[in-house]
Amino acid sequence: DFLNALQEIVPAFGASTDDLERCRLNGMVDCGQRHKHIYQRAMLLVEQVKVSKGSPLVTCLLEGPSGSGKSAMAATIGIDSDFAYVKIISAETMIGLSESSKCARIVKVFEDAYRSQLSIIVLDDIERLLEYVPIGPRFSNLISQTLLVLLKRLPPKGKNLLVIGTTSEVGFLESLGICDAFSVTYHVPTLKKEDAKKVLEGLNVFADNDIDSASEALDNMPIKKVYMLVEMAAQGATGGSSEAIYSGREKININHFYDILGDIVSFRG
Amino acid sequence: DFLNALQEIVPAFGASTDDLERCRLNGMVDCGQRHKHIYQRAMLLVEQVKVSKGSPLVTCLLEGPSGSGKSAMAATIGIDSDFAYVKIISAETMIGLSESSKCARIVKVFEDAYRSQLSIIVLDDIERLLEYVPIGPRFSNLISQTLLVLLKRLPPKGKNLLVIGTTSEVGFLESLGICDAFSVTYHVPTLKKEDAKKVLEGLNVFADNDIDSASEALDNMPIKKVYMLVEMAAQGATGGSSEAIYSGREKININHFYDILGDIVSFRG
Amino acid sequence: DFLNALQEIVPAFGASTDDLERCRLNGMVDCGQRHKHIYQRAMLLVEQVKVSKGSPLVTCLLEGPSGSGKSAMAATIGIDSDFAYVKIISAETMIGLSESSKCARIVKVFEDAYRSQLSIIVLDDIERLLEYVPIGPRFSNLISQTLLVLLKRLPPKGKNLLVIGTTSEVGFLESLGICDAFSVTYHVPTLKKEDAKKVLEGLNVFADNDIDSASEALDNMPIKKVYMLVEMAAQGATGGSSEAIYSGREKININHFYDILGDIVSFRG
Amino acid sequence: DFLNALQEIVPAFGASTDDLERCRLNGMVDCGQRHKHIYQRAMLLVEQVKVSKGSPLVTCLLEGPSGSGKSAMAATIGIDSDFAYVKIISAETMIGLSESSKCARIVKVFEDAYRSQLSIIVLDDIERLLEYVPIGPRFSNLISQTLLVLLKRLPPKGKNLLVIGTTSEVGFLESLGICDAFSVTYHVPTLKKEDAKKVLEGLNVFADNDIDSASEALDNMPIKKVYMLVEMAAQGATGGSSEAIYSGREKININHFYDILGDIVSFRG
Amino acid sequence: DFLNALQEIVPAFGASTDDLERCRLNGMVDCGQRHKHIYQRAMLLVEQVKVSKGSPLVTCLLEGPSGSGKSAMAATIGIDSDFAYVKIISAETMIGLSESSKCARIVKVFEDAYRSQLSIIVLDDIERLLEYVPIGPRFSNLISQTLLVLLKRLPPKGKNLLVIGTTSEVGFLESLGICDAFSVTYHVPTLKKEDAKKVLEGLNVFADNDIDSASEALDNMPIKKVYMLVEMAAQGATGGSSEAIYSGREKININHFYDILGDIVSFRG
Amino acid sequence: DFLNALQEIVPAFGASTDDLERCRLNGMVDCGQRHKHIYQRAMLLVEQVKVSKGSPLVTCLLEGPSGSGKSAMAATIGIDSDFAYVKIISAETMIGLSESSKCARIVKVFEDAYRSQLSIIVLDDIERLLEYVPIGPRFSNLISQTLLVLLKRLPPKGKNLLVIGTTSEVGFLESLGICDAFSVTYHVPTLKKEDAKKVLEGLNVFADNDIDSASEALDNMPIKKVYMLVEMAAQGATGGSSEAIYSGREKININHFYDILGDIVSFRG
Ligand SMILES: Nc1ncnc2c1ncn2[C@@H]1O[C@H](COP(=O)(O)OP(=O)(O)OP(=O)(O)O)[C@@H](O)[C@H]1O
Ligand SMILES: Nc1ncnc2c1ncn2[C@@H]1O[C@H](COP(=O)(O)OP(=O)(O)OP(=O)(O)O)[C@@H](O)[C@H]1O
Ligand SMILES: Nc1ncnc2c1ncn2[C@@H]1O[C@H](COP(=O)(O)OP(=O)(O)OP(=O)(O)O)[C@@H](O)[C@H]1O
Ligand SMILES: Nc1ncnc2c1ncn2[C@@H]1O[C@H](COP(=O)(O)OP(=O)(O)OP(=O)(O)O)[C@@H](O)[C@H]1O
Ligand SMILES: Nc1ncnc2c1ncn2[C@@H]1O[C@H](COP(=O)(O)OP(=O)(O)OP(=O)(O)O)[C@@H](O)[C@H]1O
Ligand SMILES: Nc1ncnc2c1ncn2[C@@H]1O[C@H](COP(=O)(O)OP(=O)(O)OP(=O)(O)O)[C@@H](O)[C@H]1O
Ligand SMILES: [Mg+2]
Ligand SMILES: [Mg+2]
Ligand SMILES: [Mg+2]
Ligand SMILES: [Mg+2]
Ligand SMILES: [Mg+2]
Ligand SMILES: [Mg+2]
Repeated sequence: DFLNALQEIVPAFGASTDDLERCRLNGMVDCGQRHKHIYQRAMLLVEQVKVSKGSPLVTCLLEGPSGSGKSAMAATIGIDSDFAYVKIISAETMIGLSESSKCARIVKVFEDAYRSQLSIIVLDDIERLLEYVPIGPRFSNLISQTLLVLLKRLPPKGKNLLVIGTTSEVGFLESLGICDAFSVTYHVPTLKKEDAKKVLEGLNVFADNDIDSASEALDNMPIKKVYMLVEMAAQGATGGSSEAIYSGREKININHFYDILGDIVSFRG
Repeated sequence: DFLNALQEIVPAFGASTDDLERCRLNGMVDCGQRHKHIYQRAMLLVEQVKVSKGSPLVTCLLEGPSGSGKSAMAATIGIDSDFAYVKIISAETMIGLSESSKCARIVKVFEDAYRSQLSIIVLDDIERLLEYVPIGPRFSNLISQTLLVLLKRLPPKGKNLLVIGTTSEVGFLESLGICDAFSVTYHVPTLKKEDAKKVLEGLNVFADNDIDSASEALDNMPIKKVYMLVEMAAQGATGGSSEAIYSGREKININHFYDILGDIVSFRG
Repeated sequence: DFLNALQEIVPAFGASTDDLERCRLNGMVDCGQRHKHIYQRAMLLVEQVKVSKGSPLVTCLLEGPSGSGKSAMAATIGIDSDFAYVKIISAETMIGLSESSKCARIVKVFEDAYRSQLSIIVLDDIERLLEYVPIGPRFSNLISQTLLVLLKRLPPKGKNLLVIGTTSEVGFLESLGICDAFSVTYHVPTLKKEDAKKVLEGLNVFADNDIDSASEALDNMPIKKVYMLVEMAAQGATGGSSEAIYSGREKININHFYDILGDIVSFRG
Repeated sequence: DFLNALQEIVPAFGASTDDLERCRLNGMVDCGQRHKHIYQRAMLLVEQVKVSKGSPLVTCLLEGPSGSGKSAMAATIGIDSDFAYVKIISAETMIGLSESSKCARIVKVFEDAYRSQLSIIVLDDIERLLEYVPIGPRFSNLISQTLLVLLKRLPPKGKNLLVIGTTSEVGFLESLGICDAFSVTYHVPTLKKEDAKKVLEGLNVFADNDIDSASEALDNMPIKKVYMLVEMAAQGATGGSSEAIYSGREKININHFYDILGDIVSFRG
Repeated sequence: DFLNALQEIVPAFGASTDDLERCRLNGMVDCGQRHKHIYQRAMLLVEQVKVSKGSPLVTCLLEGPSGSGKSAMAATIGIDSDFAYVKIISAETMIGLSESSKCARIVKVFEDAYRSQLSIIVLDDIERLLEYVPIGPRFSNLISQTLLVLLKRLPPKGKNLLVIGTTSEVGFLESLGICDAFSVTYHVPTLKKEDAKKVLEGLNVFADNDIDSASEALDNMPIKKVYMLVEMAAQGATGGSSEAIYSGREKININHFYDILGDIVSFRG
Repeated sequence: DFLNALQEIVPAFGASTDDLERCRLNGMVDCGQRHKHIYQRAMLLVEQVKVSKGSPLVTCLLEGPSGSGKSAMAATIGIDSDFAYVKIISAETMIGLSESSKCARIVKVFEDAYRSQLSIIVLDDIERLLEYVPIGPRFSNLISQTLLVLLKRLPPKGKNLLVIGTTSEVGFLESLGICDAFSVTYHVPTLKKEDAKKVLEGLNVFADNDIDSASEALDNMPIKKVYMLVEMAAQGATGGSSEAIYSGREKININHFYDILGDIVSFRG
């Protein structure tokens, strides 16, 4: 009955806020104009769902390279929406489950959402939900069929739902027809050197006259890799310098920084 | 016995009307000559089934791009037929079911239909019923065999059945031999600019001198995308303008409309 | 014991006559010389089985395009044979069964036949019994192995069996080696215009001076499509004329007939 | 214990003689020099197994086109060997069994054979035992592994075994490595016209001056097809002449014989 | 406990000696210098395992054409090693078992071996253990993973193990990475004519002036085929001469010998 | 509760130390500059995890040819880290387990690690954990999905984890997207001749004037093969010399050493 239904939603929502916050553990810094534009457009969709008469279901896909900040952005939109039901569906909580159990959980979240007037569901890392590997390729058709139907199925009368998907395998989703099932798709990019510079200035770990060349070296990196590289470099060539650097007493040695960058790049290159 | 059988059919039918109406939530507007022609031909098939002596089973496939209005048209034909049994078979109500359960449900609907003198069955989104993905390709052979047999099996003496299928993957159905199993196939097209213009005039959200260029921009879009784009644009560049626009106090800014269109097209392009 | 065995055969046979008649619901009209020749040759095989000493098992495959009249002819041969056991094996009565259940049913029919002195088994639509789809291709190897063995296995001493297969996928059966397992194969063709003309004359729905051009337009159509097209055209462009036409008061408008034909052909073309 | 074991073998053998005789229902006629040579060589292998010290296991494969007389020859060798245990393993008695049941039955026959001092096992139609179809290709690897091991495994001390395989898919067996597992392979051919002539003379159904041209027409046919064609032709063009022909009162009309031949050949051609 | 463990090993070993002897039923004759060299090198590995400090696990693969004497050599090494635990793992004793049962048995043998200070395990016919067929190709990945791990896993402290593998499909093992998992690989060859001559001289079944040409004809044959051909030829063209020949009263007719050879070669050729 | 959790971790850790030590049974010798550099960088990552604020999860892949010392290095890092929880996940302890059992065990180790403040998990031989074979290729997608998620999932607040993977199939991991899931990748190389020389000098089994040419011959070998070759050569050409050599009384005969090397190389070559 209604009371039970309500009870069910409340903890679901409670748990979810934590999940959303975990997607942006270190807070959100300014990643440049292009990230901002996507955020604003997505917030317009949030509003559209709120005031909509004709479109009870709006769906939006965030795609871009690994670590570019898609999940963090989706979580932020969910948090900023103030909707009653906001839930993230992620492979992290479904490790080792069978295809059909995963499927059931996904459906359950949608049915929970259908009970709230305004809901957001984040389908995080869709290729992982689909158990995708490029070799074969292999993936769960059960889950892909489920998503294809759920992305088209209208909520009950009077209920409105925004679905935000994220993926770093847009070509794969394209070939499944899942991209076309979304109303809009936005590309979340890597950082340009001017974006990287802003981030580094915020961190304050480089000497002033190193910051331009460091940013240059980070051109076209995803935000995640930028953070990892800075932290690796902050240990220093022989270790032990990290505390001094983060407390501001020392700066990262730019040559050591290049070395670290070289370790990573040379392998790929 | 007979009473039980009747009882079974009644709720099935009741439920179904709702299902049919949900396929055309916003009513039906005039989508131009080509949509109309298909509707008329399909209604001739309805009549043929009614008066037929030699063809107790007539089958008709509506194919066309995603969102072009196939399901809405099939539902409308079903509603306008006034047949005793009209039922839509859709993947939406069978998410996560096994192939064989889906198969059993499909067969059940046909056997229910065989008990009415005049019936219509809508096989909606056949590629979804078949769990089709283009990669592989994969699909349920159990269900495709079932459809191939059901599309050929004659109803019992004195019972007449019209089957309407819809699909946006006609090439796939062709390659399975399912297209050939239908008596006729009609192509439900996207809107031409003159069709789009009529729809926009009905909505009354553009300034009079913008309506031609807006229609031009929407040339070759499916009706579904037209509605979505208009609604997105109606929020305005900074949000909040939707109510004013739908109440007629304001018009959609044509440049913002182009921006929204650009977001969507640039990605695909 | 014997009585039980007999009981089993009797209803099997009873049911079967119905099944055979359903394959030619509208009776059999003259489809031209080529259909006739096949019928006669097949009736010689019936006689061979009856008088044979050295060939207790004769097998014959009817292949040809969909709707060309193969099942109707097989059923007619079975009815005209006057054999004690005549049975049609069709996918229509085995929808949704597992491969092994289908297999068991097929074997059962053969074992029933082995108990009669003279039997005919129709393997109708063999590609459907094999659950064939061209994509992959996929099919049931369990059933194909079963057929390959059954088409070669001799009935017990004193029992004689004629097996008639039908298929519209002769290339597929060829590649499985099933064609070679049949003693003879006959091609059941579409209608030539002179054949179509005879059929139309029998129906008496065209004006005398339209009948030649109508037949010309139907050149190379299977009999099934001819019937469907005539019935569609008989509704008239705006409906309601069917009764008048079949009662002979009116004739089919030849231009409307071309339109209907065009709807079907243009799509394929 | 020993008595039980003996009991088990006796009925197995009894059943088997019947099985062997069924492979040559119409007796054995002279099929020409090439068939004879193979028979003689195979009988040498029978002797080798009987007197052998160093080769307790001899294996021999008969391969050739479908209907060329391989199974009849293998059965004849088994019958003429006078060995205590002679058994034919055929797909005919294993229809619909699972791979592992078939496998168990095959192994059982070998283990039964290992208890007799002198045994022959006929692996009839190996491609059918392997559930082979050329599409894919598909086949049972469980059974192919079993055969590969059994064809190499030595019987217990003091027991001797001859295995005769037959196949019409020698290329397939070659590619599995099963051909190489046999000690020798013989090719059982179709009939040359002089072979066919001998067979026809024995049947005495052609007029003396037709017999040469009839043999010519049958050049390169397998013995099975020769019998089937003669019997079909013996019905006469309008039926009813079969009894007169087999009783010697009439002869087959050579032109009708050509017609029948044409029906079969034209289809393939 | 220890006593139980001991009990377990003793019968395992007892059974095994029989198994090893069965691999060389007719004893071992001198097959020439190349066979001898491999035997000596392998016996050095046996010693290495015995005195080793740093290499508790040594693995050696014998590869070569079918019938070249690999299993016989592996068995001989096992017998000559005088190790406490010598065991052959062969597909012959695992017919029809599931992949996982086979896997369990293989693991069991290794765990038994880990309890002896000095052990040899013969993995006989690895492609057969892996259920390999070239079509596909197909094989058991469960078993191949098991072998890949077992060939690398060190025995417990103080236990030493020599693993000898045999295969006639070295290319396949190479492609699985199983060859690289062995420390050394030796090629066991077919016989050269001088090797064959030695073998024939030992058998004493050819006339003195035939022996050179007979050896020439056997150049490049595996030892197994040499034995089979000699025994077939010893029956004589009309049978019955085998006893006289093996008792030395008669010699093999060299022309009959060529005929027999021709039967076998012509087919392959 | 907490006490139970603690108990669970303690034995897990105890067992693990043994496992780590078994990866470097013969201790660690100096393998040259390149091995050293990787060790130092990896120890910086250990420190980073210890002092980190922003990166609770650091992941590092060691890739290189089979036997190059990856597992030994990973174990050494684990031992030298002094972290409370260090665990190696290896296929050796999971032989024959089902995919899902393996998966469960892997997850269990991560969840155990999440309870310690500082943990290291070694994913040893990732291609073996994934049950990879190059033919197909085949591998466990269940396990690969599990790893892809675990390599990205953050530990709970306040817990820090370093994951070290090893593989000799880096191209395969690359194609699965598993390489990209690691923060850094280092290449563990084979030995150059100067590295090999140092190792040989340590072993003291070659005469002084042989050591240069021996090192030259070992150029580009993985450390594992170097040890195996030396031990094989130490047996001497006729056996028995190993004790004298390891006790220093004799030296390895350089020509015999070349012979042994030739046996191995010629086969591959
Ligand atoms: N605007 C931001 N400010 C600060 N940190 C950010 C921002 N965006 C992302 N991050 C951080 O960068 C890391 C990567 O971001 P996120 O996980 O959202 O990327 P992603 O595109 O979802 O990557 P993946 O494709 O691997 O899922 C996270 O640790 C996140 O907290
Ligand atoms: N004639 C019409 N007037 C008004 N709205 C329509 C009309 N036809 C379709 N629509 C609306 O357009 C949307 C798409 O229509 P519909 O679902 O029938 O398309 P479809 O071709 O079935 O698409 P899909 O291939 O995705 O199933 C629906 O919201 C429907 O209500
Ligand atoms: N000689 C005939 N006279 C009248 N009607 C016929 C004749 N032959 C066939 N028909 C009708 O034509 C239709 C198609 O015939 P039938 O089902 O035998 O074709 P088919 O070749 O078996 O087709 P499919 O390949 O689809 O199984 C049926 O409705 C049948 O009743
Ligand atoms: N020498 C013979 N004399 C008389 N009849 C024969 C002879 N050889 C074979 N036959 C008959 O010919 C038919 C085909 O022979 P058989 O079944 O042995 O052929 P096959 O090569 O085994 O064919 P398949 O490849 O289809 O198994 C059988 O009816 C058999 O009785
Ligand atoms: N040196 C030998 N002296 C005498 N007989 C031998 C010798 N080597 C092998 N044989 C015999 O030759 C036959 C084939 O040998 P074996 O089974 O060892 O070959 P193989 O290489 O293992 O063959 P496969 O690849 O088929 O397993 C056996 O009967 C064996 O007894
Ligand atoms: N630095 C070293 N000093 C001495 N022995 C070493 C050293 N590194 C590795 N070894 C030894 O060399 C052998 C191979 O090393 P290890 O198993 O670590 O290689 P690997 O790269 O993990 O190989 P694989 O790819 O086969 O797993 C082991 O026996 C190990 O003990
Ligand atoms: Mg993400
Ligand atoms: Mg639709
Ligand atoms: Mg039919
Ligand atoms: Mg046969
Ligand atoms: Mg062997
Ligand atoms: Mg390793």
